Amino acid sequence: MKKLINQPDDVVLDSLRGVQALHSDLLKVDLENQIIVRADAPIQGKVGILSGGGSGHEPMHGSFVGRGMLDAACAGAIFASPAPYQMLTATHAINGGTGVLYIIKNYTGDILNFEMAAELAATEGIQVESVTTNDDVAVQDSLYTAGRRGVGVTVLLEKIVGGLADSKAPLSAVAALARKVNAQGRSMGMALTSCTVPTAGKPTFVLGDDEMEIGIGIHGEPGRKRMKLAPAAQITELLANPIIEDLHLKAGEQVLAFVNGMGGTPLIELYIVANELNRILTGKQIKIVRSLVGNYITSLEMAGCSITLLRMDDEMLRYWDAPVLTPGLRWGI
Amino acid sequence: MKKLINQPDDVVLDSLRGVQALHSDLLKVDLENQIIVRADAPIQGKVGILSGGGSGHEPMHGSFVGRGMLDAACAGAIFASPAPYQMLTATHAINGGTGVLYIIKNYTGDILNFEMAAELAATEGIQVESVTTNDDVAVQDSLYTAGRRGVGVTVLLEKIVGGLADSKAPLSAVAALARKVNAQGRSMGMALTSCTVPTAGKPTFVLGDDEMEIGIGIHGEPGRKRMKLAPAAQITELLANPIIEDLHLKAGEQVLAFVNGMGGTPLIELYIVANELNRILTGKQIKIVRSLVGNYITSLEMAGCSITLLRMDDEMLRYWDAPVLTPGLRWGI
Repeated sequence: MKKLINQPDDVVLDSLRGVQALHSDLLKVDLENQIIVRADAPIQGKVGILSGGGSGHEPMHGSFVGRGMLDAACAGAIFASPAPYQMLTATHAINGGTGVLYIIKNYTGDILNFEMAAELAATEGIQVESVTTNDDVAVQDSLYTAGRRGVGVTVLLEKIVGGLADSKAPLSAVAALARKVNAQGRSMGMALTSCTVPTAGKPTFVLGDDEMEIGIGIHGEPGRKRMKLAPAAQITELLANPIIEDLHLKAGEQVLAFVNGMGGTPLIELYIVANELNRILTGKQIKIVRSLVGNYITSLEMAGCSITLLRMDDEMLRYWDAPVLTPGLRWGI
Repeated sequence: MKKLINQPDDVVLDSLRGVQALHSDLLKVDLENQIIVRADAPIQGKVGILSGGGSGHEPMHGSFVGRGMLDAACAGAIFASPAPYQMLTATHAINGGTGVLYIIKNYTGDILNFEMAAELAATEGIQVESVTTNDDVAVQDSLYTAGRRGVGVTVLLEKIVGGLADSKAPLSAVAALARKVNAQGRSMGMALTSCTVPTAGKPTFVLGDDEMEIGIGIHGEPGRKRMKLAPAAQITELLANPIIEDLHLKAGEQVLAFVNGMGGTPLIELYIVANELNRILTGKQIKIVRSLVGNYITSLEMAGCSITLLRMDDEMLRYWDAPVLTPGLRWGI
């Protein structure tokens, strides 16, 4: 295991210390509870947006805390859900009196823990709505989920919904937009190599030198099939076509195209995939109106990529374009 | 070799096609000449800023083209200098009548080719100034250089100098600021793994499972020493201390701290290094006033990192903070 770490048990905390050291202008980091909170939280009259999950997917979620996106994020251990007390502590830190939205990726542990936190918050009279992302078309159920896994759409949803919340819209409207974004987006990923969880010390799975896994999960969960390595053109079709079919995308529609790196794949390769994706979409007369290319929801140092397509409308475009100021996404400010 | 590519010979062109497909709002991509140009170039009365170099270091340089940074970038083959005709074509595309600044990383091929382009431009009456970055403290000469290599400072310089050029400052002032930034910055990198140049098909070098290379170059050139893998705290000292000594940084001074990923290292590890860097600098009463953490000057899928420290003054802070709108760096717009 070759990593830039100290002790395997200290990876999450050491990393949070780095975030604290470099982003104190934007963020407050509660090291004891492993929570990252907007420096100016809570904001009176603004719905608080909370997400979180296992660590190892950086920049998601911690680096998406800031104006126009998340109000707080809870960090679990690598690939393990944070605990309800973290979520409740974060809820207190960001509650501006008009409620809190929980954005939860669909994994069993996350669902259970966020539900418990929501119940605890409700007993205190804090209004909470929860929205679950489940955009991964690769598999219906998996090692960690009932139903589809929540993956790339989560990043886009956090940005768009954060933009609406910034305008001080009510909780019901913020939650409704979140549900719409999740419904309009689908994703699929693939891996060229495994990642290694630091405390495990060995790769989560093993792929041959000429193999890849299509439909991989962000924790290295198995996907649809293991097959021989193929050219980027073919890989992109294996990912994009099921998404296009599942979304029933038709000629004339507009999408945000998100080509995401799994952590160990360089940008030059992601742009090759982006080119193939553009070719496929152009061939179907589907228009890319916005795009995002880079490492945004990762699996430690896994090599590979995922594709997310999000059907856009005017409301989603407006809040995608709205100002955002976080360590991970920043424009307009 | 496991990569998201089609044919090894097509990597650069396919990637440029992806940039063209997704960033046509910001950029014009001349596929024939492998040049990326600002969509609104040339801008009358503004000094044009041109850089370029071998591909494989993305997002540098092509993704740094846009308002407030580069006016154009020339892409060579992987790890090989672009040719003088590319630079001259780009010079024509961005010359707004007040001259062009060439930003050149100190590698023999780049220097020769940019010098030839500058001579050709001069015969056409275009005023050109050239500034060379040579910030890598690891080695004095190397496989590809006479003198120090140009590395991480190049990214920071392109941003800061682009900010000044945006204010329509004259060429002499823009070149003077570029020379100051280069003089005030130093870098050093390390590798946990090699990268593989696609057309070579095998790793550039081989490291044992328990080895790392300290002082690595961005093309995989040898550094200061090969040694046993160490904790992030010790690695960060091996990189930061020579930089601090070479810059003669003293208590009370202010720096921009840049923790750069080599392409295959996840963000969670870069923040661990950032934490150690902050500890070292705080211990010496050197203040981090700005920071940048992520993959900005890479070596394909190499795992590892580099650290750059840039001594900041008010002028450099002002232009670092100035608005920028490129695919790779974006704020204030």
